Parts: sequence; structure tokens; C-alpha cells
Amino acid sequence: MKIGLDIMGGDFAPKAAVLGAIAAYKALSKDQAIVLIGNRDQALPFFAEQDFNPDLFEFVHTTDVIGMGEHPTKAIVQKPNSSISLGFRLLKEKKLDSFSSAGNTGAMLVGAMFSIKTIPGIIRPALATIVPKLKSGYGLMLDVGANADCKPDNLLQFGALGSLYAENILHIKNPKVGLMNIGEEEEKGNLLSMATHSVMKDTHLYNFIGNIEGRDLFNSKADVVVCDGFTGNVMLKLAETFYILTLKKGFKDEFFDRFNYEQYGGSPILGVNAPVIIGHGISNPEAIKNMILLSRSMILSKLVDKITAAFN
Amino acid sequence: MKIGLDIMGGDFAPKAAVLGAIAAYKALSKDQAIVLIGNRDQALPFFAEQDFNPDLFEFVHTTDVIGMGEHPTKAIVQKPNSSISLGFRLLKEKKLDSFSSAGNTGAMLVGAMFSIKTIPGIIRPALATIVPKLKSGYGLMLDVGANADCKPDNLLQFGALGSLYAENILHIKNPKVGLMNIGEEEEKGNLLSMATHSVMKDTHLYNFIGNIEGRDLFNSKADVVVCDGFTGNVMLKLAETFYILTLKKGFKDEFFDRFNYEQYGGSPILGVNAPVIIGHGISNPEAIKNMILLSRSMILSKLVDKITAAFN
Repeated sequence: MKIGLDIMGGDFAPKAAVLGAIAAYKALSKDQAIVLIGNRDQALPFFAEQDFNPDLFEFVHTTDVIGMGEHPTKAIVQKPNSSISLGFRLLKEKKLDSFSSAGNTGAMLVGAMFSIKTIPGIIRPALATIVPKLKSGYGLMLDVGANADCKPDNLLQFGALGSLYAENILHIKNPKVGLMNIGEEEEKGNLLSMATHSVMKDTHLYNFIGNIEGRDLFNSKADVVVCDGFTGNVMLKLAETFYILTLKKGFKDEFFDRFNYEQYGGSPILGVNAPVIIGHGISNPEAIKNMILLSRSMILSKLVDKITAAFN
Repeated sequence: MKIGLDIMGGDFAPKAAVLGAIAAYKALSKDQAIVLIGNRDQALPFFAEQDFNPDLFEFVHTTDVIGMGEHPTKAIVQKPNSSISLGFRLLKEKKLDSFSSAGNTGAMLVGAMFSIKTIPGIIRPALATIVPKLKSGYGLMLDVGANADCKPDNLLQFGALGSLYAENILHIKNPKVGLMNIGEEEEKGNLLSMATHSVMKDTHLYNFIGNIEGRDLFNSKADVVVCDGFTGNVMLKLAETFYILTLKKGFKDEFFDRFNYEQYGGSPILGVNAPVIIGHGISNPEAIKNMILLSRSMILSKLVDKITAAFN
């Protein structure tokens, strides 16, 4: 198993990536290798600092980087030797089994769709995020930004992607899939959510439990929350604000602790032909470590094969 | 001045309405009368309980009520003598200067549009909600549910409605109007927000400051947050969840205290030909009192005249 990691992505690159990779290394078995992609010269001092042998990792050296503010499509096209472009090339050539980065989200999305491509039968992949549940454990919300405009068929498929992820990665049996809406009743909603409800209620792909509302994100009504990428992105950023507020104000609580992005390991892109994870731009070593461990889970669970089979 | 109040609306009607009206009465001047609409017989025991003279209020007695779960349009049509229908009839006949209720939100929206109607030039009215700001004071978000599907022209107008409200009721000079979006850059967004940005940036109607994101709802970037009613409703319910959580968990904080709906006095419907306010279904006497005081502010500020002039 080869777990690819862009060491140039995120606000604290490459230090956070190196420290995270070292921490993950200790948790992996011998046949689980981490492949570090990026500027080796910039990375080596951090191995020295930790007195850790860099030869325990494979390196794919490159000096080219896609910056956080760069235009995704342009950057992917114009920088074929950037760490993100290289990572996807290796993933496509099956020299990697997964690829993750805390770098430019748009470039990761575009890179995934241009290189390894969307799984046949899936109209658009979705970006998913883990959501802490009040009672215990986690749920999933998708899409949170890959598709600002969606059609009912997109949302119908997001339900299947989320359900398979919840089952195989979060180990939730027969996950409850809810449609984010502005009322519980079937006839409530905007044109998109009303049309989506009418196709979702007939689906045999997953356990659709009906409409849910903004107040239900953290309760146990649904394990998988389906919405368009505009709504999901706005909700995600609003929820993050609250987590940051509770931190700033010094509130200590088990539920709010589980909001911590570090534990999630990042947001998976679901519906593409290999495991791809996008980390938070502010990823610290703990977050990077968990992104690597999540990559391993996605590989071991054969999630991509299961999604492929479901859409065949 | 005649301030109309439906005493049959909300989970704690008519008791909460009676106690709220008594509390408001003490804060009003002699020429500011409260008109109570609903079942007088059910209300009287609560006056007796408080040892307060009911004759200090005008009553419009009716036994008919629109329930919280009733279909708005059907109920308004089939129950012309319900307290909500009666309130709007009196408002239309100018026997009231404002009307408010903590009852069926949909019936309040439909009732307003059927009776006093939309101000000429306004395509669709919007439901607005007060938002506490981290630094201090309050801002406004609209639409939060009156229009699940919007066009750019709707959102453009919501900006004007919100700006006039912020200036005249919240006393914010030259309010900053922001467009809720999934990125700060002009080219970010879904079809609606991109098209809206391109019309808003040329407007002279108000001080448009550009796109804002979910994380900006409580900061000082914008005083007025404009979004479609689907997005606004989901955000509002998500934000309420957090407030309830902080209460449940016993976190005490000045900012979270300002989330308390009781202080707001309810959500105004902006863009109709008279002041109309919808209270939270769980309104207690304090909330009802503040709804009455907000009604007074809306009347005294001549907000409706100012909106009418702006759209003339």
C-alpha cells in the first residue's frame, strides 16, 4: 500500500506534513508506505529536528508548488510538476493507492477529475465533511462545496456516496440519509429540494429518512446529510465559526471537542476513481497524521470499488 | 397609534400574549394603544391573575383560530374570522397601524400579501431576522424563509429592504450590505449568487460591500446579510441550535445571551404596506412585549413610507 501525501499543501507546509507523516508512520504496518511529494530539501531539516530517518519514507521530489490563492484549473494545467499535479499523475498510474493534500481545494478537485476521473455512472463527485453528533460519534454532510449548483440527480447520487462512506468508513449500519430542507413535510422546500425529495423517496439505493432541517445537523435524525454544495459550504463555515467561538471563549465540552477538524483527517472527495482527501488549510501535524490514517481506511475498506459496483 | 396583537398565536397563547401585552402597556405612552385580537373569554382569567384591568386594552373578540400546523393559504381563505385574518383585515382598513403574531408563520406571510399587499415596485417581500454581532449590537439577515427560490432581482431588493431596516430600526448609519456566498471573490458562487453579485455591485440603492461567507454571519463585515430564503432558513435554524446548545450546556456568555430570540421581538416581514412582525412559536411574555415595542418602532420610524419612497 502506498499512501501519497503532498507535503507542500497548507499553511504550515512542509513542517506540519513532515511531523504528521512521522506520527502516522509509527501507526502503520510495514507494508503501508507513505510517499511524500514535494520539496525534499525543504523537508529534510524537519526530519533532522526530530532525529527521524527520512529514508523510511519514499520521496517524489519537486520544487513546483500550487499556491493557496491560485486559480485551480489554470494551475493544474500550467504546473504539471507541482506537488498536487504529480500526486495525481502517480495516482492515475497506480503508483499510489491514495492521495491527500492540505493545499488548494479547487486544484485538488480539478486535479482529481482531470486525472483519475469520475467513477462511471456518477454525474459529479462530491466533497464530504465529517459532522460530530451530539449523542456520540460522527455523521457525514455532502456536498460542501464541489458543486455550487446541483440538480436532483446529483443529490440523489450524493445520498448513495454518503451512505457507502458512512457504512464503510464510519461503520454505521444502514445509515440514515436525510435531505437538508426548510421543513420536514414532503411538500416543503425550494424547487431543487422538492424535486429531490420526490426522487429520493423512491430510491432503493439507501435508507432515505426524509427531509431534515438546519437544526438537525448534529442530532441523530440522519447519519448522512445531503445538500447542494452552496448550502453545505455555508453551513460548514457557519458551524466552524461556532467551534472557534467556543474555543476562544474557553468553553470546554466533549461535543465541541469533537468539532476539532484535526481529528477528521480532512474531507474526502467521493465519486472519483481513487481515495482522495483534502485537508484543512490550517492542518497541523495531528490533522495530517489523521489524514494519512483516513487514507489507509479508505484503501483498506475498498470504498472506491464498492462505489463503483453500486453505480454499475 | 394602534398596535395590533394576535393573542391566539404561539405555543403559550393566550397567556404569554396577555402577560406580554401587560408588560408592554407599562412602557407605552397614552396615545399608543394595544389592540388584542382573539378569544377574550380565554384571555380574561390571565388579566384577573395579574390583577390588571383588561379595559386598558381594546379587544377584537373572535373564537376562530388558525392552528400552527394548518395549511397557510387554505386557512386564510377558509377562516376569515380567525384572529390572524381579522388582524390583517383591520390593518388593511387602517384600523390598526401594525399587526403581529407568534402564530402560523405561513399564514402570517400569506395574510400579509393577500390583505395589505406588497409595496409597489417590490417583487417579493422578505422575512428578516436579527443577528447578534460579536463586537456588539445587531445585524439583519434576510430572506430567512419567505422565498425558497429567488432570482437576482429579489436579492437585489432584499438588500434595499434590509438596509432601510438597519438604518431606521437598528440605527446603523450607511449599513454594510453583504451577499452570502461560498467565497469572497466576485467570480465565486452558484448561478444565483454570481448573477446577484453582478447586479449588486452596480447598485446605488445601498452600500454593497461584496460577498461574505458562512463564517461572517456574526462578525462586523456586513450589517445586512442577503441570501435566498432557503439558505437563510437553514442558517437560522443551525444558529439557533448552537444557542440552545450553549444554554443546555450552561455556558454563560454575553454574546450567546444576545442570541436570545426573546430580545428581538420577532421577524419583520419587509416589503409589505404596513408593519407586520412574526414572533417565534415559543414566544414567552418577554418576547411578546418586545414584539409590541418593535411594532411601535416600525410605526414611529415610518419605515414602510421610507421603503415605499425608495421603490417609487
